[in-house]
Amino acid sequence: MLQNPPAEPGMAEEEVDTPALLVDLDALEHNLDRMAAFCTKAGIRLRPHAKTHKSPVIAHWQARRGAVGQCVQKVGEAEILAWAGVPDILITNEIVSPRKLARVAALSRMTNIALCADDAGVVDLIEAAAEAASCRLTVLVEMDVGTNRAGVGSAASAVALAQRIAGSRALVFGGVQAYHGGAQHLRDGDARRAAIHDVAEAARGVVDDLRAKGIACPAVTGAGTGTFEWEAASGVFTELQAGSYVFMDADYGRNRPAPEFRQSLFVAATVMSAARGGVAVVDCGHKGIAIDSGLPLVHERPGVTYASASDEHGQLVCADGTQLSIGERLRLVPGHCDPTVDRYDWYVGVRAGWVETVWPVAARGMMA
Amino acid sequence: MLQNPPAEPGMAEEEVDTPALLVDLDALEHNLDRMAAFCTKAGIRLRPHAKTHKSPVIAHWQARRGAVGQCVQKVGEAEILAWAGVPDILITNEIVSPRKLARVAALSRMTNIALCADDAGVVDLIEAAAEAASCRLTVLVEMDVGTNRAGVGSAASAVALAQRIAGSRALVFGGVQAYHGGAQHLRDGDARRAAIHDVAEAARGVVDDLRAKGIACPAVTGAGTGTFEWEAASGVFTELQAGSYVFMDADYGRNRPAPEFRQSLFVAATVMSAARGGVAVVDCGHKGIAIDSGLPLVHERPGVTYASASDEHGQLVCADGTQLSIGERLRLVPGHCDPTVDRYDWYVGVRAGWVETVWPVAARGMMA
Repeated sequence: MLQNPPAEPGMAEEEVDTPALLVDLDALEHNLDRMAAFCTKAGIRLRPHAKTHKSPVIAHWQARRGAVGQCVQKVGEAEILAWAGVPDILITNEIVSPRKLARVAALSRMTNIALCADDAGVVDLIEAAAEAASCRLTVLVEMDVGTNRAGVGSAASAVALAQRIAGSRALVFGGVQAYHGGAQHLRDGDARRAAIHDVAEAARGVVDDLRAKGIACPAVTGAGTGTFEWEAASGVFTELQAGSYVFMDADYGRNRPAPEFRQSLFVAATVMSAARGGVAVVDCGHKGIAIDSGLPLVHERPGVTYASASDEHGQLVCADGTQLSIGERLRLVPGHCDPTVDRYDWYVGVRAGWVETVWPVAARGMMA
Repeated sequence: MLQNPPAEPGMAEEEVDTPALLVDLDALEHNLDRMAAFCTKAGIRLRPHAKTHKSPVIAHWQARRGAVGQCVQKVGEAEILAWAGVPDILITNEIVSPRKLARVAALSRMTNIALCADDAGVVDLIEAAAEAASCRLTVLVEMDVGTNRAGVGSAASAVALAQRIAGSRALVFGGVQAYHGGAQHLRDGDARRAAIHDVAEAARGVVDDLRAKGIACPAVTGAGTGTFEWEAASGVFTELQAGSYVFMDADYGRNRPAPEFRQSLFVAATVMSAARGGVAVVDCGHKGIAIDSGLPLVHERPGVTYASASDEHGQLVCADGTQLSIGERLRLVPGHCDPTVDRYDWYVGVRAGWVETVWPVAARGMMA
């Protein structure tokens, strides 16, 4: 079952059923324009990450502003984008199941698609899928550049894996993925800059080693909303994967306090209980807003704090002199945008207090 | 978009696409039987909470074992159950939006439905909806019995609100809801028992005060998987709302270590990277398994720990001598069952290593 759309175009924002995922379209367009202008000026390609928005609509808006394609984490996300006409997709992740790889091979007939590997065994699996489907698949080598998650751990391993890929008739070597997820959320800008300096040097080393072996590296891809200026300035990255900049969230807001990007994503909530003084309850708990990176903020309502989340309830604490009443509506700023979006089937696009458009979170829940 | 079903009946469990929500049907049936037997012996009604399972299939299995109806938190959940033939539904929550109340009034024509109030303003709204739809709605008074969330704060307020409801021609007074959510998760059994003793005394006081004013209290409803024995033993509760017992989770497993209920819910995951010694990465992060009540446990794989969750990745740490290989499959035990279920569109029911049935999480995402 899909959720019912919580609104229709033409409604006042006050009439939107809650909880609902609101997008302030002015702020969204500001963010899209701002990042496009940055990339043009920096002379770097933008391949935004669709794990944030999960929406072909936003992917096409990004493409119209110059984005070269999209990143995804999951095959199901790639399918949703490919079926909606996104022409170039990078799966920034290892795919190891033969059934999933067969789906990737099938997609390669309708879109340019690439994926990552960090192990010769994974390359074997991708090669077998390409051979079975009589297609060629593009594979990037993922480097572990500090997140300590997936990725090869040394330049030598990266080069060996690239040689393995480049030597296969069924595969194309697509370059290097060097994404430092952990660095995005470091609070201190200098710490982020230093982390990305190390990332860029590691990537540069691999590119140089590959060149010495006669292998061109067509792409070095990475970066996120927390660090993209430094990847862009490094001279080694060829494209940026930032995703969260379209929406922002409370966590990124603490990292980038300047209004370079505006908060465009909100969850609309309604006060459903105010039985006790100083406390109120809204109809949105952590089933409706992600709390993995901290609790939501209450937008433009000084003195009101979202103090705790249970599954379906959010408890608000009101400072002295602040009163909330039953039925009152609030905008919540998610602590973390990506998993919040993934809770909803619909975006409600608002502008100047009115619902302008409602469109699906088309890749919501596409985890496989 | 719905997720594709990750399996078909007749498949081996090893073939299920991951991440997937697995239900061990033997364990589920054990849990359903066990709770039904408890309630029969204790002479108390069971109205399980569907916020856990979000599934008419499981609701009907509970009804066949004697459950008198279902609890829900949201109008959208009530609709899914009512449309599937569940004949008696209690919304254990305040509903304050006129549009939502109109939906409740509409449902009252196809099922017995009741909802909660903790404020005269809420009763006014429910009454208006009932009058507009020319129906009568059943309203329970929610007491705050220690969670400090919704609910009236005193016996006097509870009695006054019950009188207000009982005095309305459009409403029926349905009783008292006295659910202590916070008590469910206290680690110490004696602390849970003590908390519920206080809850029961508070409820008894309200029932006695109502009787003194000539108002019968048709139901005292509450309890969860952490405390239900004590509500049942109190002599004042008439029905139990436990929900999580059907599945259990890592958090409840720490509270109820005896194998009274078995873990029946798992997330199947696949190792997608094992590039570095002692670490492996599975294809399920916190978009696929809830971490609000702690990280998942790795089922029956000693030496392997789920050490951290990012959006789409789970990092496993392997003790010395333990090795995971790419493509290897694991069962994860969710830290918290309810929000984990809400991430998925499909249950995959397995028995003895085979997929027996696949059915929808029909009320997935029904937050409004």
